Amino acid sequence: MGASDDCIFCRIVAGKIPALRVFENEDILAFLDIGPLAEGHTLVVPKNHHELLSDVPEAEVEAMTRHLPRLIRAVAEGVGVEGCNVLVNVGRVASQEVPHVHWHIIPRKPGDGLGYRWSPSKYPPGRAEQVVKRITAML
Amino acid sequence: MGASDDCIFCRIVAGKIPALRVFENEDILAFLDIGPLAEGHTLVVPKNHHELLSDVPEAEVEAMTRHLPRLIRAVAEGVGVEGCNVLVNVGRVASQEVPHVHWHIIPRKPGDGLGYRWSPSKYPPGRAEQVVKRITAML
Repeated sequence: MGASDDCIFCRIVAGKIPALRVFENEDILAFLDIGPLAEGHTLVVPKNHHELLSDVPEAEVEAMTRHLPRLIRAVAEGVGVEGCNVLVNVGRVASQEVPHVHWHIIPRKPGDGLGYRWSPSKYPPGRAEQVVKRITAML
Repeated sequence: MGASDDCIFCRIVAGKIPALRVFENEDILAFLDIGPLAEGHTLVVPKNHHELLSDVPEAEVEAMTRHLPRLIRAVAEGVGVEGCNVLVNVGRVASQEVPHVHWHIIPRKPGDGLGYRWSPSKYPPGRAEQVVKRITAML
């Protein structure tokens, strides 16, 4: 789970590739996304290499997330917005492009055209109950 | 911080409104979104009422997130997908509709038309450095 020389985020963590660092401790590094969706778009990455959020042990998830509230507040205050989206893409099918867990903090403004594509549906009768059974069977 | 009778998620937590429960412990409840973007779309909410993720104390963020990896795996395996988006909308401007922190786990399939609207930009010279200074000044 240590650093991988093939991984761009491991190389940023190791200081081999420059990045604009926002916050750092022994567990995580937060830095500006160089292809931002909005000014202040920040990535939070664990220093340990894990490809997918679904792979990460509990204690490491805690270390990754415990500073999210203050990072969200600092990003929002720093760029002068009233809200953010926090997003993790888990897997290529979910648009994860770098195979090292990363949390996006994306500042939002009215009319910015950003956000998740939202077209809610409904379950046909009985289907949601089947889905819950299938999910809980995996827990 | 306690339950609010005005809050739909507090009412679900208290069992006053039915929900299809996927997982529960003393800190969190996970249940199916009744207006799913995809089959198996699951919400994870803290039992304590907090409006915004940016308001949540560190220990409670940890309790909220430590089970995310196994919940993501169970949702993905349960509905037969290879990835998910994990999303928190923080604030009305970021499309947060229920003012009680909730984590979306959204299963993804190829060609499903879901995902975050992605149109990356670039900082003009010197601007990213200014933005980092403004954000770090707030930490």
